[in-house]
Amino acid sequence: MSQTEPAMQEAINPDDIRVVMVHTSHSGNIGAAARAMKTMGLTRLVLVSPADFPSEEAYARSSGAQDVLDQAQVVEDLDEAIAECGLVVGASARSRSLPWPLVNPREMADRVADHPAGSPVALLFGRERSGLTNEELARCHCHVNIPANPDYSSLNVAQAVQVMVYELRMRQVLAEPQTPERWGVTWDQPPARSEQLEGLFDHWEKTLVEIDFLDPNNPRTLMNKLRRLILRAQPDEVEANILRGMLTQVDKSIRKP
Amino acid sequence: MSQTEPAMQEAINPDDIRVVMVHTSHSGNIGAAARAMKTMGLTRLVLVSPADFPSEEAYARSSGAQDVLDQAQVVEDLDEAIAECGLVVGASARSRSLPWPLVNPREMADRVADHPAGSPVALLFGRERSGLTNEELARCHCHVNIPANPDYSSLNVAQAVQVMVYELRMRQVLAEPQTPERWGVTWDQPPARSEQLEGLFDHWEKTLVEIDFLDPNNPRTLMNKLRRLILRAQPDEVEANILRGMLTQVDKSIRKP
Repeated sequence: MSQTEPAMQEAINPDDIRVVMVHTSHSGNIGAAARAMKTMGLTRLVLVSPADFPSEEAYARSSGAQDVLDQAQVVEDLDEAIAECGLVVGASARSRSLPWPLVNPREMADRVADHPAGSPVALLFGRERSGLTNEELARCHCHVNIPANPDYSSLNVAQAVQVMVYELRMRQVLAEPQTPERWGVTWDQPPARSEQLEGLFDHWEKTLVEIDFLDPNNPRTLMNKLRRLILRAQPDEVEANILRGMLTQVDKSIRKP
Repeated sequence: MSQTEPAMQEAINPDDIRVVMVHTSHSGNIGAAARAMKTMGLTRLVLVSPADFPSEEAYARSSGAQDVLDQAQVVEDLDEAIAECGLVVGASARSRSLPWPLVNPREMADRVADHPAGSPVALLFGRERSGLTNEELARCHCHVNIPANPDYSSLNVAQAVQVMVYELRMRQVLAEPQTPERWGVTWDQPPARSEQLEGLFDHWEKTLVEIDFLDPNNPRTLMNKLRRLILRAQPDEVEANILRGMLTQVDKSIRKP
């Protein structure tokens, strides 16, 4: 085709995502949801006929996310909230009369990431007691179910929002090319070299014999377990030096016969 | 080795997991955390010097998870909470003076799943305002950070609990051998057969020509787009029949010249 295809981006643009809360009865939940959204970098909150908003309770629970509440769009019906959305995903419990495409939050994040940028996405959350109605669910391309305890699967609505927006953020985090970091953080010391560790283990063995902990005629099992333990920890140079320094001090302190 | 190795199970035993909340100031958060735990099948809550517990607020926010609150263990210091734990994981913001092994919640769930069954695991959550102290963090095998908006990364503590326990449950859900279901649910109708769909598309084309929508001299592009759309939806037999029945009805309604 000679036409340029719209760019299918792997990234999720926060401006494309709307969290839509339908007929929320407890305004504290609206505040908590706003906070949840902001922690994950989302700001577009839409409230369909909230029972009580704005309210002190909502603002109190929003903590530092008042701006999300200030910008929240309040509408009277779902149509207004989702009319221009190209992807509508509805939170749902599993059992409904008519099977509907159902994903878990992680799969939802994949679908959102695959959705063309610039086409708004709506995540629908229903009433505290009864969720979304069948009519509202029928507006959705797919439903999302948070895998939960079959005996008690009712997440608080703001908690459900937190889980969903967390998965969206994780999708972003995992999609970014990442320089693997040592232990997941920027480490401050280089790894101990093998030679350094051999010096450590040799010293260690000697000291353990000196203190009569190790039988010099059968040192192997213990030393191997020690090696395995220390190596699993992947010591850095300073750590290996610390261990070595401790052994030196023990040596100095040993009471000679 | 002739000894039997302790079984390294892939499963996560809920009884092994303790959610430990340290010096929680707002008891509503304790209730919300209890609810979050229960939705994900966990029940062992430990409270280290909570400011106000038990309380009406905690019970109100726990919704149907009062039993978790009833069974919550209240202790005076962290030692009591984690002494027998073989794996201690602490919620942490990224920047601390000494780098410490850091994982995200998904990696945390993998570590928990790999931990030997029967050895208790503690997930530590800190104060609302200041998190865990350096001393408390130093008790941890690793720290967990929830990837968040760098400009606003402070999740409410009960929300952080919800995300963590959700990841534990997802680990379970994804670990269980799953029979792939059609669209993620137990579908109620068999897929439409290709032959049935061909009949549908042929009929559709004819009807579109009849209503002067389709130029019989150049039908291909439109029909291909229609096919592609319908096939993407993977219709079942009943759905294909519905479409076919609609076309039949159109045919009957066409005003003949």
